[in-house]
Amino acid sequence: MSETQIASLDRLTQALADEMPEVNQIILARMESEVPLIPQLAGHLIAAGGKRLRPLITLAGAQLAMAQNNITVMPQAARYLAAAVEFIHNATLLHDDVIDKSDQRRGRQTANALWGNEASVLVGDFLFARAFELMVETDDIQVLQLLASASARITEGEVKQMTVQNAPDSSIDDYMSVITGKTAILFAAAAHAGGRTAQADTPLRDALHAYGLALGRAFQICDDALDYVSDAQKMGKNAGDDFYEGKITLPVIFAYQGGDADERAFFDRTLAQSDIQEGDLHHAIEIINRHQGIERALDMADEFVEQAIAALDIAPDGEMKQALIEAARFSARRPS
Amino acid sequence: MSETQIASLDRLTQALADEMPEVNQIILARMESEVPLIPQLAGHLIAAGGKRLRPLITLAGAQLAMAQNNITVMPQAARYLAAAVEFIHNATLLHDDVIDKSDQRRGRQTANALWGNEASVLVGDFLFARAFELMVETDDIQVLQLLASASARITEGEVKQMTVQNAPDSSIDDYMSVITGKTAILFAAAAHAGGRTAQADTPLRDALHAYGLALGRAFQICDDALDYVSDAQKMGKNAGDDFYEGKITLPVIFAYQGGDADERAFFDRTLAQSDIQEGDLHHAIEIINRHQGIERALDMADEFVEQAIAALDIAPDGEMKQALIEAARFSARRPS
Repeated sequence: MSETQIASLDRLTQALADEMPEVNQIILARMESEVPLIPQLAGHLIAAGGKRLRPLITLAGAQLAMAQNNITVMPQAARYLAAAVEFIHNATLLHDDVIDKSDQRRGRQTANALWGNEASVLVGDFLFARAFELMVETDDIQVLQLLASASARITEGEVKQMTVQNAPDSSIDDYMSVITGKTAILFAAAAHAGGRTAQADTPLRDALHAYGLALGRAFQICDDALDYVSDAQKMGKNAGDDFYEGKITLPVIFAYQGGDADERAFFDRTLAQSDIQEGDLHHAIEIINRHQGIERALDMADEFVEQAIAALDIAPDGEMKQALIEAARFSARRPS
Repeated sequence: MSETQIASLDRLTQALADEMPEVNQIILARMESEVPLIPQLAGHLIAAGGKRLRPLITLAGAQLAMAQNNITVMPQAARYLAAAVEFIHNATLLHDDVIDKSDQRRGRQTANALWGNEASVLVGDFLFARAFELMVETDDIQVLQLLASASARITEGEVKQMTVQNAPDSSIDDYMSVITGKTAILFAAAAHAGGRTAQADTPLRDALHAYGLALGRAFQICDDALDYVSDAQKMGKNAGDDFYEGKITLPVIFAYQGGDADERAFFDRTLAQSDIQEGDLHHAIEIINRHQGIERALDMADEFVEQAIAALDIAPDGEMKQALIEAARFSARRPS
């Protein structure tokens, strides 16, 4: 095992400790509405927190560009953008929970469980619209262009995920295309657009884009792999959510590709035909472990971590760069 | 009855006959995706057509501004904007049909009935993102600002509609706030932003905004009133959809406000408690007619038509202005 085990987001969070309160204030102010259900429902999700990883990456991109250009004050546009990115992310979470019929997120009941699917769909739309309002306030049409395209790609990734659902013979390419769309593109756009708000030059913008893309891929691969690690080994999320929903992720793809006729028949029954019985998750984990499915997925995540770190080579040295390197390592955390 | 009976959209459609094919091409091109389900599902809804009233209003706004500024060629930005407005509208239709659990629209099965709620939610998101991409291409941050705010207001209107659902004691103000958000704001933004693409001066922009707002209100009031007109009197839509969904519209508000204890108890049972039995729709229509609920709603629609027409006073005279006047009259069509 590598040193990724002990990486955390603390360094990045600390490096941006002075900036995040203002971003959080923008987030709170912009979910207000004269229709009380909107801030109520949105607040349930957004105030519950999460790591605010996307706003952090956005501001970090801006700070690297500030270092490059000797800018000493964080541009207000970067803060708007950070809030917008968090809104886009939370809009997709609201819609995802409706689509996946989830009733738990971050250890609490989901908005759709509490207020119904209808409200979750509409408040997701509201957050998405508010995100665009915030981006308009950056007054930079290129930033808008980046995030509008990213938003379209996110939904393409999600639709693609739906179309390859229940197909355990999916390819690694299919999987990569899904997670690039649904997760990595937003990190890439956030870092890149963050850099733009402080006039990053083209090489730095490209570096930030590549960093976000690789970090996002590592993050999602790892998240998906941990879904097959038994609860005792980790905190929070329950094991097996993806299995029960028929979502095809790397551990399954590796196991299916290397599997014999019996093992494939098992995945065909459980994942393709959604005929899941008592003990099947346990058996799935056995087969996956037989083919080192989790280990190989986490190795791939590590490769993306290395790509993310390498992308920062040309970035100005300093605390922020080191914090981003540590954040990349955190994105491919191993079960303890 | 007034002359509104014979008004149609023909004049507006003809006045823009040379422009709409290009807009339709943009619409088709921009729903493309490497994920085949997206154009399939979006195409089912968008190709089914509808009147394209929102793109028409957008281009009409541009043309009035062209007349004002002696511009002879339609700006490409107006076409992008017209397509974007149609995308926003169709995104909301996809989500509405999921929320209302509708299985029929424009005489065909809905997308959610054919492909499921999940796909409809995501493709709605996709169209919304694509709309923003198109608006970015207008390269006018003010246009983006207008449409981003309009989008937030649309969802606020829809959430508000949900929160006043099943409350027959809603006020006319509640109702107006719902339809202004969910319907009228987009017409206002479309006409106004259309004008902007051809440098409309401030009075013309304000006029176009007021025109769109009033037309949208008339349109929705009329649509809602016709829901209580028996099928024999009109074409297309079934009577009673709103009644069965517990949506509170003007005819019900008028009947409830003027109703005696029995009549109110009837609406409390059917609309508030959703306890609807055979014959209840017929009885609801009887009560509504006793209080002239439909007639009074259509009278209100007519007032908004007059407002829309008055707003155009300062607009350059000519065929386009006359076509918009006729479109306003069409928006408050009476049952034949």
